[in-house]
Order: sequence, then C-alpha cells, then structure tokens
Amino acid sequence: MQIRVYYEDTDCGGIVYHANYLKFCERARSEKFFSQNQSPEYGGYSFVVRSIEADYLAPAKLGELLEVKTQIEAIKNASLILQQSIERNGKLLFQMKVTLVCVKDQKAIKIPEEIKASL
Amino acid sequence: MQIRVYYEDTDCGGIVYHANYLKFCERARSEKFFSQNQSPEYGGYSFVVRSIEADYLAPAKLGELLEVKTQIEAIKNASLILQQSIERNGKLLFQMKVTLVCVKDQKAIKIPEEIKASL
Amino acid sequence: MQIRVYYEDTDCGGIVYHANYLKFCERARSEKFFSQNQSPEYGGYSFVVRSIEADYLAPAKLGELLEVKTQIEAIKNASLILQQSIERNGKLLFQMKVTLVCVKDQKAIKIPEEIKASL
Amino acid sequence: MQIRVYYEDTDCGGIVYHANYLKFCERARSEKFFSQNQSPEYGGYSFVVRSIEADYLAPAKLGELLEVKTQIEAIKNASLILQQSIERNGKLLFQMKVTLVCVKDQKAIKIPEEIKASL
Repeated sequence: MQIRVYYEDTDCGGIVYHANYLKFCERARSEKFFSQNQSPEYGGYSFVVRSIEADYLAPAKLGELLEVKTQIEAIKNASLILQQSIERNGKLLFQMKVTLVCVKDQKAIKIPEEIKASL
Repeated sequence: MQIRVYYEDTDCGGIVYHANYLKFCERARSEKFFSQNQSPEYGGYSFVVRSIEADYLAPAKLGELLEVKTQIEAIKNASLILQQSIERNGKLLFQMKVTLVCVKDQKAIKIPEEIKASL
Repeated sequence: MQIRVYYEDTDCGGIVYHANYLKFCERARSEKFFSQNQSPEYGGYSFVVRSIEADYLAPAKLGELLEVKTQIEAIKNASLILQQSIERNGKLLFQMKVTLVCVKDQKAIKIPEEIKASL
Repeated sequence: MQIRVYYEDTDCGGIVYHANYLKFCERARSEKFFSQNQSPEYGGYSFVVRSIEADYLAPAKLGELLEVKTQIEAIKNASLILQQSIERNGKLLFQMKVTLVCVKDQKAIKIPEEIKASL
C-alpha cells in the first residue's frame, strides 16, 4: 500500500514523527479489509494490538511516497502475528512485528474460522 | 487551561500544525467536564462541532506553554457558541468562534435544562 | 483527491474527529504540488494558514472513501483564498474557506509571479 | 507525568488508539527537558527513536488520567535505553522499552558528557 507523507506526519525535527509509522502500518492492515468492501470489525469481532517490536532504520520526509508491506508470520488460536515494513524506493526505513489479538465484547476470543479463511 | 507544545504537535515547518489548535481548544472544552468528574457525554447527550471561524495570528513552537481561554458567547435552544483563544505569555496566537450543536442519537436536540444550568 | 477514513481519523464518538477534516484539506492542497513532483515549499516560499471558516454538515465514518475538492476563490498580492469541500458519494459533508498567506523567512511576502502562474 | 485522555486520543473502537501511547511516552521524555527550561535539542544534539518493544496490557478511555513513568535502563556510548510505563490508578496499561540514539547533523554520535551528566 502506497502512503504519501504530508505535513501532519512530520515534526519539527524535519522527519516523520516516530509514532506515525504505526499509523501507516495500521492503515495497511485496515485497507486489506476496506479494499474488499469489508470492515475490520466483522460480526462483533475485531483485532487489537497486543505487542509491537519496531526498528527505525532511516527517516522519511515530507512528500515522499512510502510503500507499506504486510506479511502474515503466524495465525494462532486467538492471535495473529504480522511482519510489516515501510520502504521508499526499495530502501527499508522501518520494520515491525505486531501481535494482534482477536477480541469480542472486549475479551480475547478464538479467531472464527471464516476470518481465518479470509486471512 | 495550560497546554505544552510537544513534538507531535509540530510539523516540518518548525511550528505547530494548524489543525492542532482545534485539538487544543477541544481539550479545554472537555477539561471543563473532566475537571468536575463529569463526562462531555451526559445521559446520551453530547456536543458536536457545527462551524468554526478561526484566525491564526502568530505561530507556536516546540516546548512553549500555551494558555487556552474559553468564553460562552451564546446559549441557544440546541446550540452553543463559544469564543476560544490561545495565548503565550499574554500574546494572542489564535482565536476561534465555534458553534456546537447538542445531539442525541446523532440528531440535533434541545439542550436539556440541567446541562444549560451547568454551563 | 480521494481519502480513506482509517481508525486514526475517528474518535470514540464513532465519527471522524473534527480537526481531521482540516488535515484532509491540507493533504489535498499539498498533493497538488507533490503530484507534479514539486514541493509546497518553493525557493524558500511557503503558504501558511491565516484564517478558516468551516461548516460541518454530516459526519464521516471508518472505512468511507471521501473526495476532497479544491477551488481557488481569489489570488491576492500576498494571499490566496481557497474553497475546499469534502464529499462522500456526492453528498457534502464539510466545506471550508481557507485563507493562506505566502511567507518567506517567517514573514508575509508578495506571491512570486512563477508561483502565481502555476496556481 | 500525568496525561488526560481527550477525544483526539481515542478511536471509534472506544479506546485510546494504539499509536498514541507512543506519543504519551514521548511527551514524558520531552517534559524532562521542558520542565527544566531546557530543550530536547541541545547544541545541535537530539535523540531519535531507534527501536521499540511495547506491550499493550489494558485499554485506556476518554477522560481518564494516566501516569507515565520513565526509568533509564542503560546509557551507552551513543544511545540510551529507557523503560516507560503507563498506569491508571496503579494498574499497568502499557509498557515499552525504547532505544534512543543521539544524533547530530542526522548522524549517530557519541552522547556528549554534559548531556550524560544531566541524565
């Protein structure tokens, strides 16, 4: 998924504010659903972030076009582990391993089979 | 209400990003409720922004302490007009007239008397 | 310019947070430059927001695709007045008149002829 | 450092958006400098985030008062490792190990002795 860096994404250090890379990765996760006319909140089920391991390798700047890539590392009973990366013209700027937990009514719950299938 | 400018509030132009002054004003509106242990969502009623007239007079920068001031200009049947300003050491940086509409179940509704009284 | 609503754009009221419409409009202004491989900061000149008059007509929600439209209302000596609107499937959700001032070295300055020409 | 949760911090899931906990932690890091009338950008030196390991343990909601705690885990030659946590009334909601690198002119550099001393 392509993402353009706008003013709102940068800070007075002249580069993209560190927390915003997490937003870019979340957009890419949600877009997988939206682009199929689905919601990331399916039948009362949704995924919440449980943990993140992120490395910031090089900064991004205003106006740049970034590419967010997402790969499934593991699908467990109630959770999902993804590897996401952000590149600019093939150069790796950021990478993150994120663990998402399936929740319903604010409690962790087994991922329904139809969601597993669509993943 | 005092607000400190952090990195997240600035952009690569070196100053506070223009949309964030609206966030600062909203914090001041909500804090009126929170500081009295109340919620801005009272009995299903809440206020949504209907219109804004804002003037940007001087920029704010990282680390500065700003003061947000709020005055009620008018309380109408279903809406509320506020004057809000942001100052730094007595210097006016930003001023805004904001009209808020009382809503319940996503429809505009007469402001209940007990909310009017607390305003 | 098309903009998708992501989680980051919404608040716990279930709709897009009011200040974020200003971000969407700013993206559309900047994209005019980026899409031509130009920067909104040209030769030390840039545009800063001087005033805004905005009307919030209907809410936007998670996953929706919005269309931001921008029209030049007036080009003055040192400033620029734009009309911007945000629609969803042809329905008007938000409209804004924004006055931008041309600045260089943090001072208002006459808009250079080559920038005027490109507008 | 105490932080109030405002509308801007939440998303339509009804809880604080995951990336915003990183903002809260950054505010606490910067406030260490601001509260002593110092800038986090000292003599051309600043600290940028190099890596993050974060755990999301329980959600925070609108209006809540959170407490951000920061401890230095290690001061290395050119980097700094901090442990930060976010609590609500003593209940741990979020914890993060963050590695910051000292940079000058966008290059990693040995932390100057006077900065080390002030840490």
